[in-house]
Amino acid sequence: MKHIRVGIVGFGTVGRATADIIAHHSALIEKRSGVKLTVTAVCRRQAINPADAPPGARITTGWKELLTSDDVDVIVETMGGVDHSLQLLRGALEHGKPVVTANKKLLAEHGDELFALAVARNLPIGFEASVAGGIPILRVIQESTAGDRLRALHGILNGTSNYILTQMESRGIDFDQALSEAQKAGYAEADPTFDIDGQDARDKLCILARMAFGGHLDVARIPTYGIRDVRAVDIRSAQRLDRTIRLVASAEQTGSGLDVSVRPWLVSRRSMLAKVEDVNNAVFLVGDRLGTQMFYGRGAGGDATGAAVVSDLVEIARDLAAGRLSAKNVVGFLDSRALEIAPEPKPAGWYLRLTVHDQRGIIARVADTLAREGMNIDSVQQEPHSPKERLSLFFTVEPVSEPKVRSAIEKINAFEFMVEPVLLLRIE
Amino acid sequence: MKHIRVGIVGFGTVGRATADIIAHHSALIEKRSGVKLTVTAVCRRQAINPADAPPGARITTGWKELLTSDDVDVIVETMGGVDHSLQLLRGALEHGKPVVTANKKLLAEHGDELFALAVARNLPIGFEASVAGGIPILRVIQESTAGDRLRALHGILNGTSNYILTQMESRGIDFDQALSEAQKAGYAEADPTFDIDGQDARDKLCILARMAFGGHLDVARIPTYGIRDVRAVDIRSAQRLDRTIRLVASAEQTGSGLDVSVRPWLVSRRSMLAKVEDVNNAVFLVGDRLGTQMFYGRGAGGDATGAAVVSDLVEIARDLAAGRLSAKNVVGFLDSRALEIAPEPKPAGWYLRLTVHDQRGIIARVADTLAREGMNIDSVQQEPHSPKERLSLFFTVEPVSEPKVRSAIEKINAFEFMVEPVLLLRIE
Repeated sequence: MKHIRVGIVGFGTVGRATADIIAHHSALIEKRSGVKLTVTAVCRRQAINPADAPPGARITTGWKELLTSDDVDVIVETMGGVDHSLQLLRGALEHGKPVVTANKKLLAEHGDELFALAVARNLPIGFEASVAGGIPILRVIQESTAGDRLRALHGILNGTSNYILTQMESRGIDFDQALSEAQKAGYAEADPTFDIDGQDARDKLCILARMAFGGHLDVARIPTYGIRDVRAVDIRSAQRLDRTIRLVASAEQTGSGLDVSVRPWLVSRRSMLAKVEDVNNAVFLVGDRLGTQMFYGRGAGGDATGAAVVSDLVEIARDLAAGRLSAKNVVGFLDSRALEIAPEPKPAGWYLRLTVHDQRGIIARVADTLAREGMNIDSVQQEPHSPKERLSLFFTVEPVSEPKVRSAIEKINAFEFMVEPVLLLRIE
Repeated sequence: MKHIRVGIVGFGTVGRATADIIAHHSALIEKRSGVKLTVTAVCRRQAINPADAPPGARITTGWKELLTSDDVDVIVETMGGVDHSLQLLRGALEHGKPVVTANKKLLAEHGDELFALAVARNLPIGFEASVAGGIPILRVIQESTAGDRLRALHGILNGTSNYILTQMESRGIDFDQALSEAQKAGYAEADPTFDIDGQDARDKLCILARMAFGGHLDVARIPTYGIRDVRAVDIRSAQRLDRTIRLVASAEQTGSGLDVSVRPWLVSRRSMLAKVEDVNNAVFLVGDRLGTQMFYGRGAGGDATGAAVVSDLVEIARDLAAGRLSAKNVVGFLDSRALEIAPEPKPAGWYLRLTVHDQRGIIARVADTLAREGMNIDSVQQEPHSPKERLSLFFTVEPVSEPKVRSAIEKINAFEFMVEPVLLLRIE
């Protein structure tokens, strides 16, 4: 029986859940994997109540000493942020210690450097917890790509946005109310930007796409739109079309490159995407041989993320015990070719919501503009009972490429009757 | 670069797809895993057209020589059946060769012996392809159980039955027509018993439950009911209740043991189970920490199953190349404790369809019988426009345990107006 000692840096929700799972499942882990995990050190900048720390673990406030300390075999990073985490992971690998992290932002931005270092040192970085919480999607992708070529992936990767959208849908409330309730319920942070504007989903998508398709992808170049401008009227309008709205991260290999984006989609209420409710996540993979697969589960929360951290720890512990640590899990990520973003993404159907000051001839002028840009209108709706000075009009158009629809929107936004810019959603 | 040579025994749909994937994805596999796979031998009792065999592979009709031949490092068993497969796997392991199989029947019935032999020889048996085709559910369970305790699992594990049920649902056709069309489409075998009577799902459930909960489970003791008696009237009746019918394999740990069965369920049309259509499979896992997870994809077919075989081959090839073969993946299966089947399963709601020769007072007598057995009726329906001598009546009852509802059914079946026995479906 090999005994593997874990140091946890950052003792918030995920760090605490990780320690808790190790404490409570230790016997099960031993039985299943033949290794004994113990948390021997916990590091947090603020003071920790010793009663909250894992039994027998020492408490420190500086993570640097863990890099060289004799009683820590593996380091778990759950402090978040980028600067300190980057230094920590770099330091750990340089000192020969495997690391596990849930930090998607760090990996989306500095994955190249960190994974290259891991390969150079032949050490693993466990990062299953960085995407889709407890869903073992990175392992699934690794396995899938062993016997198949993946063509596309898409999914709901941000629990906060999904919670807000499903609350808006089920209770007819507006975005601001749903957000403030999500904050009270602990599902959204005080500054929710990162979640609701799509960056969190974008970082996760970047990691998934690199694992699935192999190659470098610049996270900052992924077109990213959030749900901040989605209103109750959009949910109602979607419902009249037998649809609902989801924030979807998608990446597809096309002849001209990767068609990749994070944006709200209008999806059929009968689709599996629509069935993903509250803070849950789902990832769809499409492979040549495997067809479409879908993986669903809790996308966030200490327990699910902690369980993913522990699954990485167990794998590392097994390999450590067998004396065969390696950086095997970062192969796709480090593929040297670049994943080029397609200059002209695939045509899609689009939903446009116009907020206008009502006057005669609006629909005719909008329809004319859309026609001149080569678009066919699929449906037109007007929100019932809305005030003349702030009327919502909804158009759906048949599939065209995004530059075309954006060019039409630019012209529409210039009309004198427009109260605010057009909201554009992609139709599934 | 290590070169791993594969011998395939049984060259039907799955064997051929496996060879085809290895031939076409060889470069990708090399890049991703650092090993080169080649099929060097193919064995089939009937003659193979040399043009159909993998390039460079020799063709044999007897599998025994593969056990000792120098040009085969790993053996893939895709011939099906139990007798020869058992001998083949036993022989391969005894001769020090790892094996990969898609044969759930073999593993459900002889898993104890084969996995014990694998452990004794420290050799892997790859069996990802034996359950749920391309969905990597066994690996997911292994990972999940590393950091969490699983409480329950259920799923749609038989693609043939699911295809028949969804055809009945979408086109309003009866069971016999759906079955015969499934046979024509290649989704059902000439003798469909194994699929439509639930044994195939039962064998897969046995493997899943043993992996998830750890311990011995006698496959023959799993209560198993198929879909042979489900009729178009049941689908219509389910639709009136906003439900549909799915063949569900389920296992749940309860205080008194494992509540396990394969049987048709009435599920909400809005549920994810209802969204699983055609030959697709889905598995739901419920863990203490991870909550509910769902994994969905193609459950059968050469490509999906072949891809699962290849994913096992790649893992074995990697370990073989690194000189670290082991039987690590059979830990749960070999847990020595027995998974006791709960004597009194959890209460559930039930759907009863009675086919009667109409006369006065039937509903009153049935209702009286149900009441005497301590059941509360939830709904009663009568199929419209049905002939008096063969009238369908539907009852749904509030949750009670199965023995209670079976005792009531026994009494109802004895009534003189019954044309055939009651059909009993569980309500989700």
